[in-house]
Formats: sequence, structure tokens, C-alpha cells
Amino acid sequence: MQRYFVDKENVDIKRKIIYIIEDYHHIKNVMRMKLNDKIYVCDNDNNVYLCVISSFNDDNVECEIIETILKKVELEVDVTIAQGLVRREKTEEVLRRITELGASGYMSVIMDRSIVKIKDSKNSKIDRYKTIVKEASEQSHRSKLMKVYETLNIRDFINFSKNYDLCLFAYEESGRKSNYDLKRYLCNFDKKSILVLVGPEGGFSENEVKVLLENNFKAIGLGPRILRTETAPLYIMSAISYEMELEVNES
Amino acid sequence: MQRYFVDKENVDIKRKIIYIIEDYHHIKNVMRMKLNDKIYVCDNDNNVYLCVISSFNDDNVECEIIETILKKVELEVDVTIAQGLVRREKTEEVLRRITELGASGYMSVIMDRSIVKIKDSKNSKIDRYKTIVKEASEQSHRSKLMKVYETLNIRDFINFSKNYDLCLFAYEESGRKSNYDLKRYLCNFDKKSILVLVGPEGGFSENEVKVLLENNFKAIGLGPRILRTETAPLYIMSAISYEMELEVNES
Repeated sequence: MQRYFVDKENVDIKRKIIYIIEDYHHIKNVMRMKLNDKIYVCDNDNNVYLCVISSFNDDNVECEIIETILKKVELEVDVTIAQGLVRREKTEEVLRRITELGASGYMSVIMDRSIVKIKDSKNSKIDRYKTIVKEASEQSHRSKLMKVYETLNIRDFINFSKNYDLCLFAYEESGRKSNYDLKRYLCNFDKKSILVLVGPEGGFSENEVKVLLENNFKAIGLGPRILRTETAPLYIMSAISYEMELEVNES
Repeated sequence: MQRYFVDKENVDIKRKIIYIIEDYHHIKNVMRMKLNDKIYVCDNDNNVYLCVISSFNDDNVECEIIETILKKVELEVDVTIAQGLVRREKTEEVLRRITELGASGYMSVIMDRSIVKIKDSKNSKIDRYKTIVKEASEQSHRSKLMKVYETLNIRDFINFSKNYDLCLFAYEESGRKSNYDLKRYLCNFDKKSILVLVGPEGGFSENEVKVLLENNFKAIGLGPRILRTETAPLYIMSAISYEMELEVNES
């Protein structure tokens, strides 16, 4: 069934009515839906409603809430993936996959070895990225949209990191030295938010490693093989889901 | 440092000499290496040698072994990913990523809901796939090449599965029912080989599910969100690496 995201203010819980504005065209003209067709609507705050289309108004589709879906589909921790600025296609691929895998946020960070240079129109891609996230969220049945942050330089990124309970960076050297503390950090984690920085293709500069370690970031390895910058975020998100979401049920 | 794969028969351990034939052109003309340049050579049987180029012969590059590298980079279990036949681009992307993530084998399986139809030239892509695997293996510093099997139909695939100690299939319905037994299977696994089947875009048909369950396959869920067919193999490989390769070192 189709799934749409709306702002919370468009959900009128008392009257059991939801107004869909942004996807009006998609519902009416692309999907050619009719009155009484059923859809899922997510309020981007973990609530999912099974709805029936009750009216096509001038600028919105009005839906009646039939049922609130209680199934939990979101990770209990907020995980933001930060990545050394890489080419647009790689960023898009990572965005798609980590949306499916349950991340709460993504940002690019301008780093010493980023090959891509940022232009003046630096955040012009954000809108496109948000569309990708929205589509991937609908397909993977998420109830919350991942946030795409503006690109930061390393200094601003360090400031931003102060909002997180646990800050990690995936460091090739850690893998080489079999420093696999990721597991220890995840096993014992009982707080709310994790920030993980992955380097650009060329990895971290010595100075960046120094600055990160001075600012409460922990270096982690992701196993003995060398992962590409676009694979590392998928490993991290899969590991977090595996550790925190898959219960061991003795049968 | 560059890394090349050779057949085991080209390694003369007694004389400490390796002959590189296949990558002759790459070493000499692409990389323009010279005598005494150092490279890594892998024998595709878990051995990695640090070598120095000692001679450019007519049809091979002769290297002297300086040192045998003992670092373990391969998973201790053999994991083969089987996937409902999907478009070539998706297959290539999965091949690249699961090579990085340590898989031992990959095969496509013709399934009821595969949208792609196989042509007579059905296994003509295998050579291209092998090249992709070789490149990804070099980049991710593996010591063993992942095997790319020919495409099978479901009946032959079931026969093939008898070679494995544990056979799993990633079933959307299992995720819906919070059947997350993957973790239980991995925690307790003490054998040698795992085969995991991932459906094509449309998922498994009822009949396929029946046949798989009758043939010793266990259904597993990969968390509460719906993963695409090209993301599921990455989740599985990351989870296996996380469970089996990352030790918890108390600091």
C-alpha cells in the first residue's frame, strides 16, 4: 500500500482527519487514486495511520484515520552518519541505503582529503537529497524521515558533535590494529544518540585524527578488510540494527 | 601498495619465487612498475606475500618473496550469498560490496518473481563478474577470491544447498513477525559454511517458501524495516562480520 509523509500539524487526531498537501499531485494524478482508497500516512514522529481517502479538496487530499499502526519500525537510538565529502552519486547511494537501514541523520563534512570541492551553490543538492530520503523511507516503511544536514567543515562538525552521547570515527588504522571496540560500545550503550564519522576516499589526515581524538571521538575498526567509504556506513548501520533490534528468542 | 592474485601453482615456495602472468600488462604498462618495486601477491588460498619484482620475462613478471604476511583477513566461515536473479547493474553492485564484506561465493537463482529473464548467453556475464570481484578483492585487501557461480534454477539450487551446514533465506514476512532468529543462528554457529538466499525485487512466491522450508532452509528477518534486494546481502554480511570478527576487548 502507498505510504506518505505529512507534517504533524496536518494530523487532526481529535477529528481523525489528515490533510495531505505535498503529495496531492502524486496521489491524484500519478497514482490516480479514488475516494475510499486506502493508504498509510506517517506523521514523521513515529506514528503511522491506516487511512481512507475521504475527499479531494482544492489543494489537499483529506483522509480519515481508520487505525493507528503500532508496529515499531524505528531504531531506539538516533544514529547520524557523517561522511567526508564525496561525489554526489556516492552520497546518493549512501543516503538510500542508510535510510533503509534506519539512520536518523546524514551530513557531509569537508575534510583534508576530500577530492570533491564544494561550490558556492553548496547546499543546492540538499533538496534533491531530501527527495531521495523521502522515497527510500516510503519504500522501506519507515515512520520517520531521516534528516539531511547541511555540509559542515571539520570545526563546525566538532561543535555539532557535542549534541551526541557517543561519537565514533571509522578509522582504517583501527582495523589494521584489530581495534574492534565498536562491539563493546554498542553492547553497553544505554543512551540516546550516536554520531559516526566515515572518512572520504583518501581517509583521515593525521591532523584530523588528532582533532577527533581530542574532542571525545573514539576510533573504531570495521573488521580486517578495507571497506570503501560508501560501504562503511552500511556496515555500521547493519551492525547497529543487528545488535539493537534482533532479539535472541530461544525456540 | 598494489596487490595481485595468482594461481597457487605459480607460487614456488621453495625457491621463494612467484610468477605473475595474468596481470603482466597491468604491472608493466598500466602501473609502469620497475625492478625492485614492491607488491603484495595473494595465492587465493589465504596466503599473502610481500614481494619485490626481480625480473620482467617474456610472458610473466617474476617476483621474489620477501615476507609472508600472517594477518588474517578472511572470515572463518564460508558465506555464499544467493540472490533471486536481478538486473545486471544490481548484481554488480552487490558483488562489489559483498566482496569487500568478506563473502566466499555469490550466485543468481532464477525465481518465480524475477523480472529479468535469462538469455541463452546466460553465463556470458560471469567473466565480467569475476573481473569485478578481482578488483574489489584487491582494493579491500582480501587474500581469497570470492567464487561467482553460474545461475541456477530453484531445483538445482536446492541440490546445491546440500553442501552447506546452515541454509537461511531472508524473508520479508519474518521481519514483519519479528522473527529475528538470524542472531541466534550466528551466535551458536560452530560449523564451516552458510548459504543465504535473498529474494528478487518481488520477494518469494508461496511455493518457493514451501520448497525452501521443506529443504532445511530457515526463514530469517533482517529487522523491522523493508530492505531492498540489493541491501539485504550487505546487512547479512555486515552482521556476520560484526558477530564473528569483532571481539569485545575489555579496556
